[in-house]
Amino acid sequence: MAPAVPWKLFGLAAMAVTLSLEGLLRFLRRKRPVREVLFFPVPLTCTEPVLSPGTSCSCPLPHTDSALARFLRRLLGARRSLELCVFTFSSPPLARAVLLLHHRGVRVRVITDSDYMAAAGSQIGELRRAGVVVRHNQSSGFMHHKFVVIDKRLVITGSMNWTVQATQTNRENLLITDDSVCVSAYLGEFERLWEEYDPATYEFFPEEGKN
Amino acid sequence: MAPAVPWKLFGLAAMAVTLSLEGLLRFLRRKRPVREVLFFPVPLTCTEPVLSPGTSCSCPLPHTDSALARFLRRLLGARRSLELCVFTFSSPPLARAVLLLHHRGVRVRVITDSDYMAAAGSQIGELRRAGVVVRHNQSSGFMHHKFVVIDKRLVITGSMNWTVQATQTNRENLLITDDSVCVSAYLGEFERLWEEYDPATYEFFPEEGKN
Repeated sequence: MAPAVPWKLFGLAAMAVTLSLEGLLRFLRRKRPVREVLFFPVPLTCTEPVLSPGTSCSCPLPHTDSALARFLRRLLGARRSLELCVFTFSSPPLARAVLLLHHRGVRVRVITDSDYMAAAGSQIGELRRAGVVVRHNQSSGFMHHKFVVIDKRLVITGSMNWTVQATQTNRENLLITDDSVCVSAYLGEFERLWEEYDPATYEFFPEEGKN
Repeated sequence: MAPAVPWKLFGLAAMAVTLSLEGLLRFLRRKRPVREVLFFPVPLTCTEPVLSPGTSCSCPLPHTDSALARFLRRLLGARRSLELCVFTFSSPPLARAVLLLHHRGVRVRVITDSDYMAAAGSQIGELRRAGVVVRHNQSSGFMHHKFVVIDKRLVITGSMNWTVQATQTNRENLLITDDSVCVSAYLGEFERLWEEYDPATYEFFPEEGKN
């Protein structure tokens, strides 16, 4: 008599092996999460290699990598959308990056603070002249956020305003993450403020309106 | 003749089942990562339920939960250490939380900005009088960070200074994470600044020293 084939045992082994392999494949295939922290200030370096890749630059500045260059590369990685919510914006290389994205067809939306958007050196006027839609607060408190959401999948937040002083002189930090809980939270805040700061709802003479 | 026992198949099945179970257990036992984002401003509420739990408060303020209360609870969760690096610090409830930790025996270290530490309403003097060690920058740029590391396992960072205006009036954000890459980065920055701002290296009359 031929020995009984232990079908049950065979089935169990096959199932367990499949499960183990599936777990192993999922483990190997998992996307590495983006977690990066950048610290400032950084010495003044040439940002042309990032902003105009492929062109050669012979300016006297050092052409080394820096936290600012890494920040610019993250921004320029945008393919579809950029939601920027920043208190003060006067950094020329960061403005160039935003304009490059706008001209490339990325949907750029900017929220800023009304008290600082027309200050000396502000880049907000440049952005508006180029056609970037900018909204701002009207309340007494500051719109003090400094975050940007890239392609609805990456958020960069921290202490740093987008100014020359912040990148070159101050002690600042930027946290970069693609954690979905964080990205959703910042996107939600952006959309809430975008609606709240809709120019259709601006009160241009709020005090007069009360009389 | 007794049927041959398929030992190899049996061993393979046992091993695969063990691996599957181990993976399942690891999945079930994994610690949920801390990812939270708090947004401000929040309406003025009573923080006594958080700062003095167990006592009753009959003040006229609302006794509801808020982003500030959640922030305070995170801080008060410290058991061993608190590394605070903040540009401006004038919020009384946040100062009370730091003092509570200091009196509880938590090792509290504070880094702040020299231009603002003696400003009206600053809580830095209160902390120093209570024995909290505070260091500050001496350079021309701002020490503009606003982050805190709790028990070397949680970091809270964002746009928000520890002021009443920030919590009650401004648009602000705080990102809370226990991601080890982020925590290590902020701890490293804290230790670098802590050494750099050691009072033993202060130059009290830097301009005179150059003559």
